[in-house]
Parts: sequence; structure tokens; C-alpha cells
Amino acid sequence: MAVNLRIPGPTPCPEEVLEAGAKPMINHRGPEFREMINRITERLQKLFYTKNDLFVLTASGTGAMEAAIVNTLSPGDRVLVVSIGEFGERFAAVARAYWADVVDLKFEPGTPADPDAIRKVLAADPRIKAVLVTHNETSTGITNDIPAISKVVKGEFNKLFIVDAISSIGSIPCPVDEWNLDVVTSGSQKGWMAPPGLAFISMSETAWKAQAQARMPRFYFDLAAAKRYLQRGQTPWTPAVSVFFALDASLELIDKEGMESVFTRHAVVAKKTREGVKSLGLKLLADERYASNTVTAVRVPEGVKAADIISRMDKEENVVLASGQGKLDGKIFRVGHLGYCSEADIQGVIDGLKRVLPMVGYKG
Amino acid sequence: MAVNLRIPGPTPCPEEVLEAGAKPMINHRGPEFREMINRITERLQKLFYTKNDLFVLTASGTGAMEAAIVNTLSPGDRVLVVSIGEFGERFAAVARAYWADVVDLKFEPGTPADPDAIRKVLAADPRIKAVLVTHNETSTGITNDIPAISKVVKGEFNKLFIVDAISSIGSIPCPVDEWNLDVVTSGSQKGWMAPPGLAFISMSETAWKAQAQARMPRFYFDLAAAKRYLQRGQTPWTPAVSVFFALDASLELIDKEGMESVFTRHAVVAKKTREGVKSLGLKLLADERYASNTVTAVRVPEGVKAADIISRMDKEENVVLASGQGKLDGKIFRVGHLGYCSEADIQGVIDGLKRVLPMVGYKG
Repeated sequence: MAVNLRIPGPTPCPEEVLEAGAKPMINHRGPEFREMINRITERLQKLFYTKNDLFVLTASGTGAMEAAIVNTLSPGDRVLVVSIGEFGERFAAVARAYWADVVDLKFEPGTPADPDAIRKVLAADPRIKAVLVTHNETSTGITNDIPAISKVVKGEFNKLFIVDAISSIGSIPCPVDEWNLDVVTSGSQKGWMAPPGLAFISMSETAWKAQAQARMPRFYFDLAAAKRYLQRGQTPWTPAVSVFFALDASLELIDKEGMESVFTRHAVVAKKTREGVKSLGLKLLADERYASNTVTAVRVPEGVKAADIISRMDKEENVVLASGQGKLDGKIFRVGHLGYCSEADIQGVIDGLKRVLPMVGYKG
Repeated sequence: MAVNLRIPGPTPCPEEVLEAGAKPMINHRGPEFREMINRITERLQKLFYTKNDLFVLTASGTGAMEAAIVNTLSPGDRVLVVSIGEFGERFAAVARAYWADVVDLKFEPGTPADPDAIRKVLAADPRIKAVLVTHNETSTGITNDIPAISKVVKGEFNKLFIVDAISSIGSIPCPVDEWNLDVVTSGSQKGWMAPPGLAFISMSETAWKAQAQARMPRFYFDLAAAKRYLQRGQTPWTPAVSVFFALDASLELIDKEGMESVFTRHAVVAKKTREGVKSLGLKLLADERYASNTVTAVRVPEGVKAADIISRMDKEENVVLASGQGKLDGKIFRVGHLGYCSEADIQGVIDGLKRVLPMVGYKG
């Protein structure tokens, strides 16, 4: 029986994607790679709904977060980091590591960012140069209202707007140009149905203007080098060729399915997940109006250990769930439902929980 | 007919390595991944001949070069970068990007670094804190005499010694502890017979002492985080799981073959390459006493275009050669013979050149 890998990345890959990843190596500076990177870049731009430059980096999503910061900012730049969980805090940590002057705006786990609160901070502190926000917070299963935040950040204050869309774009709508997002990041192991190892980043004209002034040190993640090499169909440093092969195949599948259908599919399995866990008497961490369509965080009921649920689900049901991160460790478990995920996969999770919960002390 | 990929990385992968890379995704924070990263780390330490800490990063080799620098140095630190080609210059460029005070010591392409010259620079400038050297310069096909250089750098001056062994270790001897190397880097797509996407870095106790003082900014490549996570069998950020699978399989093959046999095999195919190209009347770029056993740079004969040789070899002989890099572009072509490479593969190169050279104007 195949494992039902229900963590928010790495996500399961379709068989043809795994097979494509096993193709023999090619010259990363030859014509075959050039055709592939051009095709992948164009498809990703289409799926990001953007005309902006877009680059594929050999790194995990965190590498793209670092690239977003070091390519657009200088040490001492004041930036507002809006955090609703672990990945928001990671954004702040990257910015601080490179000596940004970080203003934190944090919201309670399970709640989204409030655009009014962002407006107040920006109005009170005109020195803020950029705003960093997580679109979909994987640690709490919350999707921020980026269009509403963009109206403030771009529409009212015209700040550089950097969005971590790692676990959203490709699964739920995130039209980069329509929402006026300057820098947007993602990773291959999320909704893209490919193995981890590649990260994506799009850069608006405004972002390039910031880049021209940005003095944070960078080399591996230097997007000016990426841009120069992409013009000849290459990457500056040797790329993860086999993951490129896999991604090429998965983007082909996504393109065939069509983004509207992909979004609908994610909405359907997410709703099924939320309704399923609630039918067992469990509670969601997220304010349901902002519940993510890519990952669901479920509160661990009183008297039950999160580790017991996760371990039993793995051993007895072949379902791999994710634990809580940071302060939420032990308080929640998470169900990933992004990328290659069917209603049957979610039914397997709910059926498994139904059998396992009574074994671990749940009286619900 | 299979392509004879004779560039110095990505290198061909054995079938079982490619197949392993197509295994379904797993939880990168689960027990299966823990067992795999522990096994891979131990095997790499064995193949690095070191008891030092060793980390596997999701990045190409250049990422490990950056990690080596940012984890051990501070802005303003004076460092000596010994360069014998493109990759030596890249080392200097990374160090400069992070505001090191770089002292350059350059040698002519095709010649190795002279330990006496290094001694003179170190004796004249006691402020130099670290020495950065390329073990095997892929752009010129030269292997530096690291033991002789180590006697100076470590034995006489006791400086921090950072070695780019990306295209050497795993193919030709580079016993890290015996040679007293503080930081050593490599990449999965070189002698390791795996696809690109993972980079390796070892850190001596001296390197960790430098790390404790090092103030260059770092986040994605922070080895303190890598060390913390490795203690629980994880990486700080999502790793390239499929490349881990492939590497796990290739290290199994290397372990079975034994390093002595791997070194002999590389020496044999390298000698066959050099003798083969010389038998056609072609000249090597390298001083043959220091010619690399992983890549051979061949001078393009008068009246012949490098691009014509490379293009004809590809189209008519199914042999993919590498062009010259930087200042050597058009002046040489390169034959990679590291990793999964047999005498028959090299015979294919020589036979192909014999047929192709007269077609592109060679009168030799």
C-alpha cells in the first residue's frame, strides 16, 4: 500500500514526474537544457500570472526568501515583517541576519494579518522601505488576504512588496501582476507536484530598481547573475538537472489541467479536509474564513498526545501527517493537501483518524 | 546510442542511481530520511577521510564555496586567494562579495600554485587570516599540490585553510585529516556519480573556532543551523530529497568499489585521455606533472575553431565535450573523466576526435 504523504511538502509526485526525474544527465550549458529552462520559465510566468522576470534557483524555498531580501535591500534598511507564524518569523530572521532594521508586526497563530494594522504601522513610520508578508502560512494553515494588504502596501504607501508565496502560488490564486507583487517566491515541492530542490522567484521592475541600490552581500543568490545567464538559457551555477526534468514534466501536467481546475481541485480537497476533521469533533486552529486551501492545522484534543496521533497514523494507516512547528509543537497536527492530492487521499486521512483517535485516548 | 557526456559535471549516473532518484517522496523530518542522511553523512566522512563534521547542502558547489567563506570569516578579514583559473577567481569573487579583504595570488592557466610563492605572501603579510585554494581547477585541468601547500599554510603559518575540492575529492586522493584541511567542499554531480543539487562541506575544529567569531551574514548557508538539525537527522530547510536518494545509491556503489579502486580507475582513464589526445598531435594545456585525473584541457590547434570541434563531436559522435571558460573560451576544449567513466568512454572520445578533426580543418 502506497504511503499517503500528507505533509505540506515534500508532496507526492505523479509517476510520470518521478520517471522524468530519472532521465540521464545532460550538459547544463547545452541546447537541451536551454530549451527546458526556457519552457519552464515561461510556464512558471504563466502560472504566476506575471510578465515579470522569473528565476529558478537550486535551493529550497528558504533560499528564495534569502534571495528576495539580499537582492532588494541594504544593511540598515527598515522593513516591516508581517508575521502570522513560523514562516513569517523566518522571513524576519533572514532579514535580520543580513542586518535589515526589522519592524515586527505579529498576529496570533490561527489568525490572518490585519491590513488596518499594517496601514497604521506604515503611516507611523515613513522610514519603512519594504513590507514582507507570507501569503500562506504553512505552520498555522492560514491564507493572508494579499489583495487587501497590497491595496495598503502598494496602493496607499507604494512600498516594495515582498511576498513568500511558497506554499500558495500554483495551488491557490496568487496573480502576481494583478495584485502588484514586487517579489514573489515559491518552491518545487509545494503545489508544483515536483521533488524539492528548486525555488522560484519573480522580480518586478520596481524590484529591479531596488536591486540596483541594494547593498546586502550576495553571490550564490545574486539575481543579476541569474538574469545574465538566463538570457543564454543557463543558470550561473550548476542546476539540479534531475529536479528540472521532474518539474518540466509536472508543469506540463499542470498546464494541461489548467490553473482554474487546479484551484478548484485544491478548494474541494481542502473543504473535504476541514469538514472531515470537524465531523470527528476536532477543532481547526485557523479562523475558518482564512483557512488555507493547501494545509489544515488541527488542534490536538485534550488528553491526547500529538506524537501518538502522528505515529499511529503512520504505522497503522500509512498516512504521514506533519507535527506543529515551534510554539505549536504538540498543540496541533497538520494535514497537507497541496499539489498531487485527491479526494480519496483525504478520505483516507479522515477514515484513518476515525480509527486511530480512540486508540490514543480521544473521547470525542 | 547513449550520449557520451564528457563534461566535468554533471557527469553520467549509473542506472541504479537514476532509478533510486525516482523513488516516491518521503517526509524529510521522518525516520526514513533520518536514517538516510545519517548513512550518507557517515559515508561521505569516510570518503573525505575525515572525522570532521560534514554537511550536505541543497545547492550546487558554488553554494558550498559561499558557505565555507561566510561561516568562517568576518567583513574586513584579510584572506589570501590562490587562483590558477576560473574557479580560483570565483572563490575570490565570493569572498569579495562578502567584504573580505582579498589578496590575490594568481598563476598562469595550465600551471599549478607554487607553495614557495604562497610562503612569501604569508611571510610578508601577517594580517592574512585564511588561505583559499582550489584543489582541482576544472577550467584548466590542473591539480594543485595540496599537501605541499598545507605544509606552508598549516605547518608553517597555521592559517585557516579552506579548500575547494569540488571536482577532486571522491575521484582523486584528498584525505582531509591527513592533509590538515579546515574546510573542504564538493558537489554531488562530480566524482560522486549522482545528479547535481547537493553540495558537501566539512568543518574542522579550527573551522568551528573561526565560525564562533565569524560575522559575515548568513542564513540559508548557516552551518550552525545545519549542525543543530543534523543532530536529529534533518536539514534546516527542505532538502532535495530525490537527489539524496540518488546520492545514497551512488555512495553505496562507491563504498562497494572501494576508494583505492576509484582512485586507480580515475588515474587510468585520465592517462588514457592524455595519451589519446597527444597521439592525435594535440597539445595539453596543463603542465603534465600536474595534469588532473578528473578533467583534461586540450589546446585547440591553429586554424581550427573550438566551437566546430564541440559541435561536430556532439552531432556526429554523440560525445559532449566542454568548452573553455572565461579567458580560455575558444582556446581549449575539455574532456571530463570523473565519476562514472570507463576506458571505453574515453576510447569513444579519441576515436570521435580522430574522425572529426580533419573535418574542421585540422592538418595535424
